[in-house]
Amino acid sequence: MTYNFFEKDQFSPINYNYSDVVEIYNEKSQFQKIQVLEHPFFGRMLVLDGIIQLTTKDEFFYHEMLVHPAMITHPHPREVIIIGGGDGGCVREILKHPEIDSVTLVEMDIRVIEVCQEFFPMISAGINDQRVKIVSQDGLEYLENGSFAFDVVIVDSTDPIGPAKRLFSERFYSLIEKNLNIDGVFVTQSESLFFHLPHVIKVQQNLKNLFKMSYCYTQALSTYAGNWWTFSIASKLIDPRKVLRQVDGNFRYYSPEVHMRAFLPDSIQNALVSGKLDW
Amino acid sequence: MTYNFFEKDQFSPINYNYSDVVEIYNEKSQFQKIQVLEHPFFGRMLVLDGIIQLTTKDEFFYHEMLVHPAMITHPHPREVIIIGGGDGGCVREILKHPEIDSVTLVEMDIRVIEVCQEFFPMISAGINDQRVKIVSQDGLEYLENGSFAFDVVIVDSTDPIGPAKRLFSERFYSLIEKNLNIDGVFVTQSESLFFHLPHVIKVQQNLKNLFKMSYCYTQALSTYAGNWWTFSIASKLIDPRKVLRQVDGNFRYYSPEVHMRAFLPDSIQNALVSGKLDW
Repeated sequence: MTYNFFEKDQFSPINYNYSDVVEIYNEKSQFQKIQVLEHPFFGRMLVLDGIIQLTTKDEFFYHEMLVHPAMITHPHPREVIIIGGGDGGCVREILKHPEIDSVTLVEMDIRVIEVCQEFFPMISAGINDQRVKIVSQDGLEYLENGSFAFDVVIVDSTDPIGPAKRLFSERFYSLIEKNLNIDGVFVTQSESLFFHLPHVIKVQQNLKNLFKMSYCYTQALSTYAGNWWTFSIASKLIDPRKVLRQVDGNFRYYSPEVHMRAFLPDSIQNALVSGKLDW
Repeated sequence: MTYNFFEKDQFSPINYNYSDVVEIYNEKSQFQKIQVLEHPFFGRMLVLDGIIQLTTKDEFFYHEMLVHPAMITHPHPREVIIIGGGDGGCVREILKHPEIDSVTLVEMDIRVIEVCQEFFPMISAGINDQRVKIVSQDGLEYLENGSFAFDVVIVDSTDPIGPAKRLFSERFYSLIEKNLNIDGVFVTQSESLFFHLPHVIKVQQNLKNLFKMSYCYTQALSTYAGNWWTFSIASKLIDPRKVLRQVDGNFRYYSPEVHMRAFLPDSIQNALVSGKLDW
């Protein structure tokens, strides 16, 4: 069987086909097409509207690199919010930090959570932890209609198409800044440094306007279009490029050395923020 | 038009299709199918036996990262040999180092050189430099039947399938070690850390048996299967992880900071060499 994964990938300059894939579940939820596929190399895959969200083979690179740099930067992260991330991968990683009191998971599509609890129990099990509160709402609306004091905000969104687009807007980032504690840290996945460079530049510029410190770090990810994946981190107080404390979290990939090496060199970071980077 | 690039990619666990590609040249040489394609995002592409070898959009990442860490590690590189690399990208980068006296380009398929001189003049122009000597022979045979004293050996090969397989053998590495000066440096592309992990482990173990120092460094490359690309570097005298001198080479990506950050953290390097890395 040949399956067109990226048939509808409007955000990338190329299309792919993958073969040897078996579909084991699909539904059309209120918001999107949800599929679970099985691949001989990548294992089980979550696909939303034709785009791979995770595979059991490599999700740990993404989830560890999205969560731990921000969690380690904050000196004592107790209250954390995740926008998106219905698969539970971020929750699992956050709960490796023993000081956590509460995790708010704001996932618009409750069916993503339910499907992942059925087909990806190793990834989503943490969602059942009593410290986790699930909110089924758009992330921007949730922040707009409340008043919070989070230590860490994590945005684990789909590509900036349709409803997810607002999760990369200056208005959204400004709401995050307002709802973060004085020593708060924010991190978002921010697409590919190679395929989506204008997007990465815009995210970095928006964050620079709102936060004392903001930087880009990267990880190669084979199942995301463009592969050279970026994470944008912003902090009110502590430099996220330094590793000032350690957690024994039984990580598969993350370490203080990986953390420090993942950041762009100053010259590339500066070219990125000034909009001069061009390749 | 839809084009199956990786239709014959036996070395990767997945297949891709790319669309929006126009073929502007193709021939069947004595050794392989050579194609030149035009892609709206990647620009002009060289494809050998269905596998992308380079694109004008991103070849500078690959060529700069293959060539400069080795050239900078050597204190005064005068005599350099490239095995493979008929496109001329490595030659172009090597000639940015002013101390170069001679570059030997050992490319089995002379038609690759000729096709690239016609369709990729910006990449292959350096081949016309009078310091460059072209040898149309298999790299292993060339080293076996001569006696040399190179400062730097660069292997810019296709995937380890067919004739290129021997360019990753212990016997080949041992010939390289023998034909390198006392302060010599060797570097080879060594496939993807994610897709081809057993291969990377074997290369690293072979090099460790032959050289005083050997390490793996990486760069995300979107047009190579597995994307998280590795380069294996080995040195007889000087630690390649340090940058002890600088060259004003008008590089698009390479810098001392990029050089130092590209190496794997010690813990991952050690797990790799011991064969314990597993993901």
